[in-house]
Amino acid sequence: MEAAAASAKVLRVAAICGSLRKASFNRGLLRAAAEVCEESIPGLRVDELDISDLPLINTDLETGGGTGFPPAVEAFRARVCQADCFLFGAPEYNYSIATPLKNALDWASRGKNCWADKPAAIVSAGGGFGGGRSQYHLRQVGVFLDLHFINKPELCVQAFQQPPKFDSDGNLIDAEIRERLKKVLLSLQAFTLRLQKD
Amino acid sequence: MEAAAASAKVLRVAAICGSLRKASFNRGLLRAAAEVCEESIPGLRVDELDISDLPLINTDLETGGGTGFPPAVEAFRARVCQADCFLFGAPEYNYSIATPLKNALDWASRGKNCWADKPAAIVSAGGGFGGGRSQYHLRQVGVFLDLHFINKPELCVQAFQQPPKFDSDGNLIDAEIRERLKKVLLSLQAFTLRLQKD
Amino acid sequence: MEAAAASAKVLRVAAICGSLRKASFNRGLLRAAAEVCEESIPGLRVDELDISDLPLINTDLETGGGTGFPPAVEAFRARVCQADCFLFGAPEYNYSIATPLKNALDWASRGKNCWADKPAAIVSAGGGFGGGRSQYHLRQVGVFLDLHFINKPELCVQAFQQPPKFDSDGNLIDAEIRERLKKVLLSLQAFTLRLQKD
Amino acid sequence: MEAAAASAKVLRVAAICGSLRKASFNRGLLRAAAEVCEESIPGLRVDELDISDLPLINTDLETGGGTGFPPAVEAFRARVCQADCFLFGAPEYNYSIATPLKNALDWASRGKNCWADKPAAIVSAGGGFGGGRSQYHLRQVGVFLDLHFINKPELCVQAFQQPPKFDSDGNLIDAEIRERLKKVLLSLQAFTLRLQKD
Repeated sequence: MEAAAASAKVLRVAAICGSLRKASFNRGLLRAAAEVCEESIPGLRVDELDISDLPLINTDLETGGGTGFPPAVEAFRARVCQADCFLFGAPEYNYSIATPLKNALDWASRGKNCWADKPAAIVSAGGGFGGGRSQYHLRQVGVFLDLHFINKPELCVQAFQQPPKFDSDGNLIDAEIRERLKKVLLSLQAFTLRLQKD
Repeated sequence: MEAAAASAKVLRVAAICGSLRKASFNRGLLRAAAEVCEESIPGLRVDELDISDLPLINTDLETGGGTGFPPAVEAFRARVCQADCFLFGAPEYNYSIATPLKNALDWASRGKNCWADKPAAIVSAGGGFGGGRSQYHLRQVGVFLDLHFINKPELCVQAFQQPPKFDSDGNLIDAEIRERLKKVLLSLQAFTLRLQKD
Repeated sequence: MEAAAASAKVLRVAAICGSLRKASFNRGLLRAAAEVCEESIPGLRVDELDISDLPLINTDLETGGGTGFPPAVEAFRARVCQADCFLFGAPEYNYSIATPLKNALDWASRGKNCWADKPAAIVSAGGGFGGGRSQYHLRQVGVFLDLHFINKPELCVQAFQQPPKFDSDGNLIDAEIRERLKKVLLSLQAFTLRLQKD
Repeated sequence: MEAAAASAKVLRVAAICGSLRKASFNRGLLRAAAEVCEESIPGLRVDELDISDLPLINTDLETGGGTGFPPAVEAFRARVCQADCFLFGAPEYNYSIATPLKNALDWASRGKNCWADKPAAIVSAGGGFGGGRSQYHLRQVGVFLDLHFINKPELCVQAFQQPPKFDSDGNLIDAEIRERLKKVLLSLQAFTLRLQKD
């Protein structure tokens, strides 16, 4: 019975895209991740958290001595707290973390840190190193947030190399990258189960 | 005559505080920098640029194929372009760059990069390493933005050590740090003149 | 019986000091860690691995198509493979990882990566940020080596602040830091047990 | 006369390869840089400094209270001091700086820092990001060493992509990369002239 219950458990992955751009490739990666899970990873469900309503971080907006937050922030924090683990779609802006993603990370770290002690994975798409530089800065942020990142595999999609990896709406159209994305998700699932076991 | 003209030239330092918090210690450092220049560095003038009106970066807000920006962004970009060099008041948020500062850096890098080929210095205040971790991430951002940072001296103020360094409005009240701040400004001035000479 | 067996298991921590200097403060931290375990953490044993005999890394010294190594390297690799987890005494050399430590990390990563999938913690002592900058570079190295670092607590000892933290032989003489060191060790033990398969 | 004298001045670039491997691609980049200068950049001469004799850094090897060094170190330090600027061939070892390069950087920083206030450029070759991760760690080291790195162009050669970029002796055989290497050298030359006092 216990084994059955365990196998029936579905881990909830909160996916957060660092770009607010509608046709973002990184959001496309997260959509593909949700599809991959639905199609072929029974124990994992990916839901994207919207971060477009969050105000730019300003602790003067907090109330109650840092325990109260603007409504959009409260709603976001609640969803972060409910997740079992995280999948970041992390574009690189000027050799570091995309600002909207950093904004979301900051808001959910205030007061009670909602990220604490949870596993996470990063995928990114972009020019140059495919978003790679942002991933290492994000990992440093994770030390303070107490996130446990999987180490392998890493996924940095060089979005502008031929043949095209995404269509004009930002949908992933490359089968090999979809396969690599699946491996990231399986690694995240395994690491989450490993860290959750009592 | 030429020497007199040169000595009469006043370098304009655009100062940008990474925190939107009213009583920010980092803004206090920038205010102190402006005072120090006015009192004792004839060739250097510090003006703070307000970044509180900038929307959270979203390239969908750009018009004209990435040449037009929201009014607050246009105004900010114009002031960045006019500066001779930059002074960043750079708090550390979660072991990286404060999000409002990154937001400002991003907006002025879009299309024609307004930061290009200009000198810059960083000062910061905070707990732990006094904001130090943010400084190295900011320096990496500067590689892409083509900023030329002074190497020395570095200034990371451990804001919570006794005796108090700032009053409750965020004003710098420590004479030794004010002296170190002056050395940062003199180094920025010297490096700017060195890079500007034809 | 099983619980008794489990509780009897002693985790072997391989401790590696990044400095070759005899009176190194960082080696002093590792000695103190061994003492703390012996005195008050029954399930954890710290043994320092000597890295002073390793040649400077040069893959031309490898034989057998990258499967054979100089004798000192073979011996070191064997000890790394036997460890359950790692404790790095990581001084900061020029704002990055101490070279002898990086040398050891490199040698045991060649061919079959001996570090893979094991937990680790970092402690450091030094001026400025107490070795802090080296810790974040080391964490980035750990992504490729597939090390799982504990996030908290971090320990960066500002070795030159009064009162003295170490004696002239590099022995830790500060009780509060010894207490913080114990917390690092307990966190490493807990994380190692959590990650080890049953 | 003065202009003629200036134009006759040849800047000496000390080139340092981070790998001790004989057929290193990064050494191949430095050889190509020397050829490019000889062929087509009159005011710039590249000489490689040998670092293979340097002992692994250990400050216990210093004498005279940190003013005396082993002979190989003394010889290396003298050549660093004579250079006008630096070109680093910087392979990536385990997501950070190649250890032999870090060793060389450390030795010439002890006592009187031989790197201080001089311009530098980095080129690298490797898998993945073409050595890119090492470049940003090296730039952080440069803050303490007081090196002034050019920002652009960056050169990270993905050495294992087809068609081959290097022959089996590590010689650069790709014309487009040779052209990009030339641009790095011209940028280093221009930045060095700009920073040198008249």
